[in-house]
Amino acid sequence: MDGADLELQGLMRAIGHQARSAASALALMTPQQKDTGLRAAAQSLRASAQAILAANALDLKAAEDRGTAGSFLDRLRLDEARLESIAQAVEAIADLPDPVGRILARWSRPNGLTFERVATPLGVIGVIFESRPNVTADAGALCLKSGNASILRTGSESFRSASAIADAMRAGLQQAGIPANAIQLVPSKDRAAVGMMLQGLDQNIDVIVPRGGRSLVERVQAEARVPVFAHLEGLCHIYIDRSADLEMAKAIVRNAKLRRTGVCGAAETMLIDRACFATHAHPLVEMLINEGCEVRGDRAITALDPRIVPAQDQDWHTEYLAAIISVAMVDGLDGALEHIARYSSHHTDAIVTEDHATAERFLREVDSAIVLHNASTQFADGGEFGFGAEIGIATGRMHARGPVGVEQLTSFNYRVRGTGQIRP
Amino acid sequence: MDGADLELQGLMRAIGHQARSAASALALMTPQQKDTGLRAAAQSLRASAQAILAANALDLKAAEDRGTAGSFLDRLRLDEARLESIAQAVEAIADLPDPVGRILARWSRPNGLTFERVATPLGVIGVIFESRPNVTADAGALCLKSGNASILRTGSESFRSASAIADAMRAGLQQAGIPANAIQLVPSKDRAAVGMMLQGLDQNIDVIVPRGGRSLVERVQAEARVPVFAHLEGLCHIYIDRSADLEMAKAIVRNAKLRRTGVCGAAETMLIDRACFATHAHPLVEMLINEGCEVRGDRAITALDPRIVPAQDQDWHTEYLAAIISVAMVDGLDGALEHIARYSSHHTDAIVTEDHATAERFLREVDSAIVLHNASTQFADGGEFGFGAEIGIATGRMHARGPVGVEQLTSFNYRVRGTGQIRP
Repeated sequence: MDGADLELQGLMRAIGHQARSAASALALMTPQQKDTGLRAAAQSLRASAQAILAANALDLKAAEDRGTAGSFLDRLRLDEARLESIAQAVEAIADLPDPVGRILARWSRPNGLTFERVATPLGVIGVIFESRPNVTADAGALCLKSGNASILRTGSESFRSASAIADAMRAGLQQAGIPANAIQLVPSKDRAAVGMMLQGLDQNIDVIVPRGGRSLVERVQAEARVPVFAHLEGLCHIYIDRSADLEMAKAIVRNAKLRRTGVCGAAETMLIDRACFATHAHPLVEMLINEGCEVRGDRAITALDPRIVPAQDQDWHTEYLAAIISVAMVDGLDGALEHIARYSSHHTDAIVTEDHATAERFLREVDSAIVLHNASTQFADGGEFGFGAEIGIATGRMHARGPVGVEQLTSFNYRVRGTGQIRP
Repeated sequence: MDGADLELQGLMRAIGHQARSAASALALMTPQQKDTGLRAAAQSLRASAQAILAANALDLKAAEDRGTAGSFLDRLRLDEARLESIAQAVEAIADLPDPVGRILARWSRPNGLTFERVATPLGVIGVIFESRPNVTADAGALCLKSGNASILRTGSESFRSASAIADAMRAGLQQAGIPANAIQLVPSKDRAAVGMMLQGLDQNIDVIVPRGGRSLVERVQAEARVPVFAHLEGLCHIYIDRSADLEMAKAIVRNAKLRRTGVCGAAETMLIDRACFATHAHPLVEMLINEGCEVRGDRAITALDPRIVPAQDQDWHTEYLAAIISVAMVDGLDGALEHIARYSSHHTDAIVTEDHATAERFLREVDSAIVLHNASTQFADGGEFGFGAEIGIATGRMHARGPVGVEQLTSFNYRVRGTGQIRP
């Protein structure tokens, strides 16, 4: 290890220790203290608008000089209105019910012992993200609301913007009597810092949340030595059953595929029941093509329209995140279940049907974090679930699955009350 | 990789695939099907008594030939009565409420969507254990009850006994129409098989549960690439507050330390409030010494009795698992909280006090999986919690914390029902 690495390691270790110490303090704070801190952080974001926008202008200039694409610049850009939304989002998080201290279960035993399972913070959460500067505020606020300290690592493109946002929030927290180290932004652009976080900073990170593209999530999942809340991809299916209402199916498919094509809950594959193929397939595919969506189909589908591209095997594995959809005919519910079991990323899958028993079987048998009946896959979102906000969506089977909101950012312990009981 | 390793790898891969396939079938079984299978497995254990006891005799003979210690032989030994207890334990697991399909939460949104959070199996659970043959039956049954397939790896000393038990259970399952591969015992004693399990067998193991001594758990925690439900040690504290009832304190301390010294919930350190030191310290320490417990104390404690050994710094870090206790005087609740935060393994810690506010602060501020007021630390056990049985106790902060019973061996997903909702 050379001198620079050693210096970085010392820096990251100090960040880990500071986070753990802040987490211990946060775990004992009242809901009011945390909420006051979050509101002060929001106010401080507003008061620091000039500094934040100036930092953002430097990030934008550097990105433009590198010839960065317009869509990327748009994600990076802040203005007064966007900054106000960021501050309001922090206040909305303060307004959520406190997830810590909830009694998750309570029971007693014949010997008189009473048991409570109580929600507690997780500890320290490491968040690794790319270019959206608002993630700094969102992630920091969600972690703090749930009593956790956060260590945030932003992509280098938004480094100045994220630093200015973090500085403003920390100043607000401190004014409200919350340790500023409840939210820390890694002050180095060195990629080695990410590797150190993935090792857990001497057990001072309890969970890692990557927010970004596939390559980031892949690296995190491959290297992390601490639990990860993430999804690699959202290869979401929508199955049109023989009993589907055609107009409802069209509306749901249009929304699921095209409302926003770049989100993880966007549908990527449509499966059509052979039993309603004659009536439903052409109108559905026609609708998609007319809406500007490229359709890639199996043999039955390509026969419907010369504009349909034959699907390759790879298509069933592909999360397009674009106005492209793969479409296959399947043999009823069993065929749909088989296709989904084989290709789904276990994120979100939906059925459209008027048949209750078929819907219930689909909901029970599809092994995905979110399964829907007669609703768009784009509801796969913590806000739409009523969670207030989410730090991401997870497809792991442990702890957090589906949208990760403030409740999912908690752990629990058991509190047992007795009157002198000893074990026989 | 040489030929033998390649062969083992092929074998382990096949076990992984078989487990995944059994898990898919188990996930859709009714509670009745699973319970019938478990009862058939219990009956098959009884019917196979001769074969199981013969296999056990060979394990015992081999262990004796190696000059193994008596206590180890006792753990390994089976007889008719012990085998009957094993069969009854499997039936008791069948009698538990089914943890799969529980509605963990239910709510609806203003747009009419209804949400359910429903318990689902975890998938495939790898259990790595040492010499107790009953773990084969317990672990296999707990996993199956919660809809999971299990891959069991036993220590080589109990290999024949465990194999005979697994064979009997698999035969029972098969008769009841449950895939025999719901429970698989790794048929190789090669230690490399453990390493392969820790890598997750091509994502065909979802969680690893190590059951055994510290070196096993340490290896598993260091190497596992999948989540681990475990605790490394139970360094449990018992704090005697100024408001403690002395007689209650004596009974609880005696039980917490000496009921069984080798269990993870046994107390290892007693902390005595300076404010009641004059009245409580001597009787408590005297009681322990009279009961045959070695006491290692700080300066205040050693002054009480010449038989008390001065504690070294290492003592506060030591899980004795023997009739030895370390004892310190602390400055009230704050001193106790500080000591516990520094040395506790976050497993189980207890307070004895008649003061309600002090007790509540202890329960709230001690960051351990289990915290108790006026009760023995030896209640740290799934059976005592009313979980029916446990596969182990976990000290991680994710998913399973404290006793891991059948409910903790489940995951969940979200089932969303609509009437054509699309996202605006």
